[in-house]
Amino acid sequence: MKKIGIGFIGFGTVGQGVWKNLEPQREELENRLGVKIAFPRIAVRDIGRSRDVDVPAQIMTEDPYEVINDPAVDIVCELMGGTGKAREYTEAALKAGKVVVTANKALIYACGQQLFDLVKKHGGHYYFEASVAGAIPIIKTLREGLVANRFASIAGIINGTCNYILSRMEAERKSYETILADAKALGYVEQDDSLDLDGKDAFHKAVILAFLAHGKWIDEDHALVEGIRNVTLEDMDLAKNFGYRIKLIGLIRRNFKTNALSLSVSPSLVPLDKTLARVDGVYNAIKLSGDVAGTTILIGRGAGRDATSSAVISDIVDAIIGIRDDAHKFFTAADIDANYHMGENLRMATVDEIKSPFYIRVTVADQVGVLADIYRDLAELNISIAKVATYEHRETGTGTVTLLTYPTSESTMEKLFSRFEKIKNILGRPLLLRVYESVRG
Amino acid sequence: MKKIGIGFIGFGTVGQGVWKNLEPQREELENRLGVKIAFPRIAVRDIGRSRDVDVPAQIMTEDPYEVINDPAVDIVCELMGGTGKAREYTEAALKAGKVVVTANKALIYACGQQLFDLVKKHGGHYYFEASVAGAIPIIKTLREGLVANRFASIAGIINGTCNYILSRMEAERKSYETILADAKALGYVEQDDSLDLDGKDAFHKAVILAFLAHGKWIDEDHALVEGIRNVTLEDMDLAKNFGYRIKLIGLIRRNFKTNALSLSVSPSLVPLDKTLARVDGVYNAIKLSGDVAGTTILIGRGAGRDATSSAVISDIVDAIIGIRDDAHKFFTAADIDANYHMGENLRMATVDEIKSPFYIRVTVADQVGVLADIYRDLAELNISIAKVATYEHRETGTGTVTLLTYPTSESTMEKLFSRFEKIKNILGRPLLLRVYESVRG
Repeated sequence: MKKIGIGFIGFGTVGQGVWKNLEPQREELENRLGVKIAFPRIAVRDIGRSRDVDVPAQIMTEDPYEVINDPAVDIVCELMGGTGKAREYTEAALKAGKVVVTANKALIYACGQQLFDLVKKHGGHYYFEASVAGAIPIIKTLREGLVANRFASIAGIINGTCNYILSRMEAERKSYETILADAKALGYVEQDDSLDLDGKDAFHKAVILAFLAHGKWIDEDHALVEGIRNVTLEDMDLAKNFGYRIKLIGLIRRNFKTNALSLSVSPSLVPLDKTLARVDGVYNAIKLSGDVAGTTILIGRGAGRDATSSAVISDIVDAIIGIRDDAHKFFTAADIDANYHMGENLRMATVDEIKSPFYIRVTVADQVGVLADIYRDLAELNISIAKVATYEHRETGTGTVTLLTYPTSESTMEKLFSRFEKIKNILGRPLLLRVYESVRG
Repeated sequence: MKKIGIGFIGFGTVGQGVWKNLEPQREELENRLGVKIAFPRIAVRDIGRSRDVDVPAQIMTEDPYEVINDPAVDIVCELMGGTGKAREYTEAALKAGKVVVTANKALIYACGQQLFDLVKKHGGHYYFEASVAGAIPIIKTLREGLVANRFASIAGIINGTCNYILSRMEAERKSYETILADAKALGYVEQDDSLDLDGKDAFHKAVILAFLAHGKWIDEDHALVEGIRNVTLEDMDLAKNFGYRIKLIGLIRRNFKTNALSLSVSPSLVPLDKTLARVDGVYNAIKLSGDVAGTTILIGRGAGRDATSSAVISDIVDAIIGIRDDAHKFFTAADIDANYHMGENLRMATVDEIKSPFYIRVTVADQVGVLADIYRDLAELNISIAKVATYEHRETGTGTVTLLTYPTSESTMEKLFSRFEKIKNILGRPLLLRVYESVRG
């Protein structure tokens, strides 16, 4: 019976969650998989720190290379996060032909291509189910469960922190700043808060999904990435009047006729009757529009110790089976090559091609003629208006104009916003949000 | 490079769907998986019949054994359905050590244990992702993606036909009989309509999920199985007044303290704000309550040619990988044994242990004292009432009394209904529905 060793680099919240949930079912897994499972080595920054789980002291080390180079370690769980040292250790482990399991989406975004090249060259393996959407088995679903499908659209709520903040703002009728402060106090926001609040974390995850579904690594220059900092409670109310809720949506669209791909992360208006509109709190949801299966939606916890460790353990089991059989199911060299092959004839959609309805919120000085100026610009750019609502604020002598457009291109909206800059009675920069539309059929 | 042959027994809607969707991506799959894929043989009842897809005439046969015994066929797709001949052919294929892929939930319910025994004995393999919830990769999710979890509750809308009928009744405000006739005309109802309408098909699927999650085959004597025949549009309206929608819910619950398992399929009141309440038409949805991942919900098309073939193709790919590596990842002999092992200390919950809130609809003759009779019986059985609504129908001299109880046992409700039989002003048999409650936490 093969003996398979699992090592850890980084043993914080997630690492301890994996230990807590894996160790009690080790024997059951051994029976099921027909292998012996061992935990030979765990690398941490500070051995002295107290932990929530009991781990034998003799397997702890402060040197990650003792994990990587231990011949008893077959699977290296990189759970330290970040793109600095984590990259060094991941590369070293892959160069040693080991199987690496990770939740590190930032690292995959930063150097996924190089990591896959190392897998191909050295025969190791890289598993990263936990990197996207926590407990939702989205990578397995995309690659295995729905393998028969090509995806015209993948849309998701894939940052739990933003969804938590937006949900609480609405439920408690409190400002972004108030809820954000609370979320930070509760430890729900990444140290570098821009990862969550500016949509970068959701972007990293969307890039991983786009690579898996379409075979292309997309960088920031070829995507629209916006966070939730400018969304106000007022926008949520206005959106609701129009029949929508505001969610941070990661959206990957592929037009199979033109072979154009687009990727965006942006606070978006989702129709109230859609499932995505009703996913609240730290939950994530991903809606896949496949050409064979039709629409499939997966909902689950997006983050947190247990949700993430559920996904890590799923990868560990797949990794064990791959080592047991001396044959990993997916992300073999041939599989990686085939994945890139999908993206070969693909191009990024232009701003003329990317269309959606838009929500525009303009603050104006309460002066004669300002509405006429706005409507003239809209008319001259051929932008059709679906809905309008205006509100006056007597105390400040200002007004709010909100508009919902019919589908319009990103480039047209850019032109509109340049024109708006010249209207002197428009106060500040108007807010522009996209309206999420399902792929039809 | 290994050459892997896929044969079909039965080539109706689903079989042709698999062909239509698999054949165009054969080359891509070959590259990805590093194998050659062939379709050596297809068995049909009548070669002469015209079909929607072009298949080489020379591979068609009317003798299923030409598929089973063809040495070029590694994977036998049993897509004929039913439990008669399909059983014979499946057993023959498994005895020949072949890999069988199927969507046949009725067959798995009828003899899953025997089929798994054949897998263990002869080294073949049995894949059945398509047997439950169409395009939703529920079996893969349960067994692989959420492998870290034990499930206190699995609740699902797993019969698309019933969900379609209930959804249309409500949307179009038409009777069960009217919509059923239409659904039959559209070919949405199984030939043996009892499979759909009496909850049997949903029961078969729930039994498969219960076996995978808990290691026990459950038969009809140990489950509550009710269909939708007695649900009226009036009940839907009354339920909505109470804050619920009526859905046919398959429910598998396990109490980890008492090791008691229960399984039911019944039209159930689902709170309006729950995701399951909003899944309409032919869509299926399954809500998994795992001890590590928390709540995960999967939504997708439950039936139809393409949805089912998406799942069959996913199994075919897994089967190809298993043959390629000469090692199947799951449902190996050890895995099957481990699965049974889970169920060893498990018992079925008694009717005293199975509790839920109930919805009761009683039709009464409009006579003095009938409400007093009903309330006396409820009080004497210690049944607490959460909500009551009564309606009088002057033209007929009758009234409708609807009640929502607090959680009560099945055995207490049985007693109540025996007592109701003795109240002469109760007309006909009252309707009893369960209220679906999420597992807390």
